Amino acid sequence: MTAGIIGATGYAGAELVRLLSGHPEIGRLYLASSSRPGQNITDMYPNFLEKAGAESPGGGETPLAAGTLEEPEKVIAASDIVFGALPAGAGEGYAKACVDRGVSYIDLSADFRLDAESYRAWYGKDWLYPELRRRSVYGLPELYREQIRALAASGPVVVGNPGCYPTAITLAAYPVLAGSGPKPAPDAAVIADAVSGVTGAGREPGRAYHFPECSDSVSPYKVGAHRHIPEITRNLSAIAGRPVPVVFTPHLGPYNRGILATVYISLDGAARNAASGPNTANADAARLCYEEFYRNERFVRILPGGLCAATGRVRQSNYCDISVHLDHTGGTLIVISAIDNMVKGAAGQAVQNMNIIAGFDESSGLRAFPALF
Amino acid sequence: MTAGIIGATGYAGAELVRLLSGHPEIGRLYLASSSRPGQNITDMYPNFLEKAGAESPGGGETPLAAGTLEEPEKVIAASDIVFGALPAGAGEGYAKACVDRGVSYIDLSADFRLDAESYRAWYGKDWLYPELRRRSVYGLPELYREQIRALAASGPVVVGNPGCYPTAITLAAYPVLAGSGPKPAPDAAVIADAVSGVTGAGREPGRAYHFPECSDSVSPYKVGAHRHIPEITRNLSAIAGRPVPVVFTPHLGPYNRGILATVYISLDGAARNAASGPNTANADAARLCYEEFYRNERFVRILPGGLCAATGRVRQSNYCDISVHLDHTGGTLIVISAIDNMVKGAAGQAVQNMNIIAGFDESSGLRAFPALF
Amino acid sequence: MTAGIIGATGYAGAELVRLLSGHPEIGRLYLASSSRPGQNITDMYPNFLEKAGAESPGGGETPLAAGTLEEPEKVIAASDIVFGALPAGAGEGYAKACVDRGVSYIDLSADFRLDAESYRAWYGKDWLYPELRRRSVYGLPELYREQIRALAASGPVVVGNPGCYPTAITLAAYPVLAGSGPKPAPDAAVIADAVSGVTGAGREPGRAYHFPECSDSVSPYKVGAHRHIPEITRNLSAIAGRPVPVVFTPHLGPYNRGILATVYISLDGAARNAASGPNTANADAARLCYEEFYRNERFVRILPGGLCAATGRVRQSNYCDISVHLDHTGGTLIVISAIDNMVKGAAGQAVQNMNIIAGFDESSGLRAFPALF
Amino acid sequence: MTAGIIGATGYAGAELVRLLSGHPEIGRLYLASSSRPGQNITDMYPNFLEKAGAESPGGGETPLAAGTLEEPEKVIAASDIVFGALPAGAGEGYAKACVDRGVSYIDLSADFRLDAESYRAWYGKDWLYPELRRRSVYGLPELYREQIRALAASGPVVVGNPGCYPTAITLAAYPVLAGSGPKPAPDAAVIADAVSGVTGAGREPGRAYHFPECSDSVSPYKVGAHRHIPEITRNLSAIAGRPVPVVFTPHLGPYNRGILATVYISLDGAARNAASGPNTANADAARLCYEEFYRNERFVRILPGGLCAATGRVRQSNYCDISVHLDHTGGTLIVISAIDNMVKGAAGQAVQNMNIIAGFDESSGLRAFPALF
Repeated sequence: MTAGIIGATGYAGAELVRLLSGHPEIGRLYLASSSRPGQNITDMYPNFLEKAGAESPGGGETPLAAGTLEEPEKVIAASDIVFGALPAGAGEGYAKACVDRGVSYIDLSADFRLDAESYRAWYGKDWLYPELRRRSVYGLPELYREQIRALAASGPVVVGNPGCYPTAITLAAYPVLAGSGPKPAPDAAVIADAVSGVTGAGREPGRAYHFPECSDSVSPYKVGAHRHIPEITRNLSAIAGRPVPVVFTPHLGPYNRGILATVYISLDGAARNAASGPNTANADAARLCYEEFYRNERFVRILPGGLCAATGRVRQSNYCDISVHLDHTGGTLIVISAIDNMVKGAAGQAVQNMNIIAGFDESSGLRAFPALF
Repeated sequence: MTAGIIGATGYAGAELVRLLSGHPEIGRLYLASSSRPGQNITDMYPNFLEKAGAESPGGGETPLAAGTLEEPEKVIAASDIVFGALPAGAGEGYAKACVDRGVSYIDLSADFRLDAESYRAWYGKDWLYPELRRRSVYGLPELYREQIRALAASGPVVVGNPGCYPTAITLAAYPVLAGSGPKPAPDAAVIADAVSGVTGAGREPGRAYHFPECSDSVSPYKVGAHRHIPEITRNLSAIAGRPVPVVFTPHLGPYNRGILATVYISLDGAARNAASGPNTANADAARLCYEEFYRNERFVRILPGGLCAATGRVRQSNYCDISVHLDHTGGTLIVISAIDNMVKGAAGQAVQNMNIIAGFDESSGLRAFPALF
Repeated sequence: MTAGIIGATGYAGAELVRLLSGHPEIGRLYLASSSRPGQNITDMYPNFLEKAGAESPGGGETPLAAGTLEEPEKVIAASDIVFGALPAGAGEGYAKACVDRGVSYIDLSADFRLDAESYRAWYGKDWLYPELRRRSVYGLPELYREQIRALAASGPVVVGNPGCYPTAITLAAYPVLAGSGPKPAPDAAVIADAVSGVTGAGREPGRAYHFPECSDSVSPYKVGAHRHIPEITRNLSAIAGRPVPVVFTPHLGPYNRGILATVYISLDGAARNAASGPNTANADAARLCYEEFYRNERFVRILPGGLCAATGRVRQSNYCDISVHLDHTGGTLIVISAIDNMVKGAAGQAVQNMNIIAGFDESSGLRAFPALF
Repeated sequence: MTAGIIGATGYAGAELVRLLSGHPEIGRLYLASSSRPGQNITDMYPNFLEKAGAESPGGGETPLAAGTLEEPEKVIAASDIVFGALPAGAGEGYAKACVDRGVSYIDLSADFRLDAESYRAWYGKDWLYPELRRRSVYGLPELYREQIRALAASGPVVVGNPGCYPTAITLAAYPVLAGSGPKPAPDAAVIADAVSGVTGAGREPGRAYHFPECSDSVSPYKVGAHRHIPEITRNLSAIAGRPVPVVFTPHLGPYNRGILATVYISLDGAARNAASGPNTANADAARLCYEEFYRNERFVRILPGGLCAATGRVRQSNYCDISVHLDHTGGTLIVISAIDNMVKGAAGQAVQNMNIIAGFDESSGLRAFPALF
């Protein structure tokens, strides 16, 4: 199978190059960049330099081949599936071209994640091809695996690959909002406090991501205004079957990869204990509900009691680690999730979606253990 | 004036050495370590090596002098004021010895922060000298400056120097719980999500603080069970005049200095806006209330609109930076505070307390700007 | 094929677990720890937690299986090849047990790297089984591939897997000392200045590796006394056919993975240019010699002119990147090499040696591109 | 005394703001930026936000005052001494304007460090005002204190404040090249391998300093072509009284502050020991010579035997720490120096020069101990 990547020179695109180069079902990778056609991916990422005559990471001929960046149109014409890793608004035309050609398109931007109204409200843009939406689906497999599969069965699809924060937060809140585990208070808001590594800001240098400015510091940003808010709200409301108020604060942390989301949900009828000491009523019951809920999810690990989710343990992998806790009064459920923002939060999840669409094993190309450091 | 430090070899103790060496009113510093008498502070901290004949950082003779670690009793006997930077339970006897000698004692442990019942519930210990409590006061100057001053006017005092997380969280929630700014929902809990740098774990090596284990990762710890919970609860309840439920999640971040606390408080009667877009109703009104509230506090900076508090901007200083926000629906106040956990969260606040007790300018020895990186 | 790892709980052992779990020829992994039999590798490394029923990273059944740590003897009995990742002196007996059983043993300690005299001088130990040396070989494939292969053809072997610094430094100096490229001055010493990430210090916490002590700082250590000196000296002298004086300074850098070695060799007859400006006589000729020399080495990349080797570009991979330079006067060759100390410097090179011994493609299980961050 | 800073918004300029704000002899600071007149230093560095009515860090009125950035001409007119922290070539006119006004100018660029020929060769520029050179002096106080003092006694001076690498390397090599300690081989080159933190690259964002690109990695740069080479060469040759070949390789390390220089000098007549074991002939004799040589230098600390210089121990201070070693054969002297590149390598040394010129105690405003982390 051949795969194309449009926007291969950004971080998410390059991470796709890395993952797809080791995917056992991908024989050939085509890379596109509208701004740098003719250049080579190794000009930006010498990591990808190959020795002449090197074999493929997956065996056989090298999928990356020459690594030349071509025009998007050429890549679409040559590929059995196409990934778009582009800024908001830049990929819709390519999605249409793919579908018209009968090829599925996995979009890593926000263009296919929201309804028209939210998209306009938060991104200030309108859809160019509303009819394309009949072939599009939101690509969080743990929620919508069957919808993705069903739509793909009937022709080419456009997958709106989820945002990094929405992935971590939705997976953390999903079981309890779906009725598994302790009962949330009526109309409970979901407070989601999250930290992202600096790769989340992308490849373009800027003052906020200049090493001396962001190393050795933690800072929140876009409080009350981050564009992932409507996606999180939509997901949680769909799960709960009611409008769920979402309070979301993203932070930038001094490290590269990973999102840690700490999610707070008030519980129903919880006569909070007087604060007479550390919580001894542990969260075992809630944790077992989470384990049961995600029993068949290959990429969601509910950690044993006593462990807390940490970004360092999912590094370079497609796992979402979740730990389940109660506050010391027993009145608030605290669920903590960790993902690698570049993998489960972007390129890995896109590969997972490709696997579903193409009928491969869902973990194909995604089975490496998390790196230890 | 001479000052003594018992427990000078831990991180908080060494930070006191650094700050007091530059304090214009301190002529001589005495250092004690019960475990290493006879050794020198420079054996552990070569940072403190001085050239022979070097002048004092503050001018005149060097307060640090030889840097020899002596027995605590000798230090108490030689000092006009004594700081204790010891593990919980280890300092009460020294406090008593100081008061008996007519010397004030500033305690950086938890021994003088809580009431007897909370101390027993969270630390599993009882007070040894209950009568000493008549001379003790909780040392968060922004709340209790007058009490500290008044007690010190009548004799030697024992100051329970606040914990790092309680300092950041209490200063963030203080104005709104005290009735300044938007009105909290009745019985509103305070959700405090905080990240600390690794110096907060102290000087003793351990697996969780081994560089390869904690660098490049963020992880929560002691969820629902951190010993700072009762101190935070007590402070906020005292401010609000009602029992305030506190939900607190500490995290470890991959950097050295600083605590960032993100504090959530639901507002009263807030018909949350539908999530139709980014928050345009900005938090200016609430921010102005905070500015007014802290107008005369030398060490609390309310940041201008558009800026978020960040640990990197208070590094090495005694400032607590606060930024005030609303979530996108307008229903939740989000207050973010940043301190240097070793300064305003420990040694700097202790010096601030000394300044109050001794009648010095409160910022004496604490006026350096935050380091830029 | 089944593989066993003795000392699986240290960093090099755990990295072997990660790499061998994804190796296409390994069907089953057995883990041993003499100090923790009965425990599970996931107790130390939750990274390795698998979902029940998860397929192997390499496809088929999971090699890691239960992850239980067993007694070394049981692991030796069950394995077709055994890796030892143990402290100096602890593995010789296991090596003997393996050879006696007809199984090859790849030793990641220093026990099989040196001659008896150097081993005694630098490690203070004697060989227990001198006769075992007839079956042992030094495992730097780029130097000794044929010897490894030939010895393995005649029975089980013990491979002395090279140290991390010696790997980086030997590969940097090899071509020029072997007569490819510019001619070194007669009796030229090799000055090797190198920086290692903190994983090089292993898993045991200690003050020097406590996050607040080593983050945000660079420091040399063991100047003139590092135990890798005799290994480097032996390698370079064997290449040059004369005793090569080695001056080696290791440094600890504030990051996890990677060694960067900067190697200086004075050139013959070099009338050094007056320092009249930046070097315009570039190092192209020397670089082309290096390219030619390593043309068929799968894991050695000579970087294009204009690029400098950097640890960040070999992260998580078995590559050794090399860049070739001249100083501004033209009198000194400066060769810079970068490896991942845990991969090409330890576990990856061990897998490479296994591939040679077992007759697999030498890059089997080692083909992933370097991680981007 | 009033001081002006031209180029106050770059990192060196801002560090000057920090240091001079705490200098006891500076009553008022004027800040200039030709590109941003009318803006405020706190727009770029909110670290410098002051509470209304705050007292000066040094006592009395705040030197920083409003923090408004003014035109350079206005600042020159108002100041008793002026600092220029500008790119190469941008400050010579300001230097002239100062001298014409009778005011000394301390230049942190390379404009006053080199002779005309070297400046042209390495910077591609010519001096605009050659006659200004009669009033200029190279500002490494440990070498040229008397010259600085003497010139200042006769009128306003222009100080060429040394570069960061040249400071670290010159101080490391000075004693042995000056004839104190072991005798270098005739015509011995000085090999200087150094690592700098990312602040050395300045405030402007760029790909190489984008957090994800440079964190967690070490990389050399400008090998054989760094512009500090002629300055180092000039210093060492002046000391040795012969042309000293300098081989210099700068590296970028993943941290903020500090330069570590490892300097290698071959010794005379050194019959190198066979490498029979770790170096037992320690470097005590050489170390004692260094101690004696620098006995009266307030800012140079020769570390006790057993300690290695490390950037983490001079952080935020004006110290240059030096440790003295021999390689294991005894044939090469290895001297390691550590400075904070922003302090002793830039702004701190500039203040030291001001103190000399103005007749203040040389450590005035520079006495704080290094920060512990």
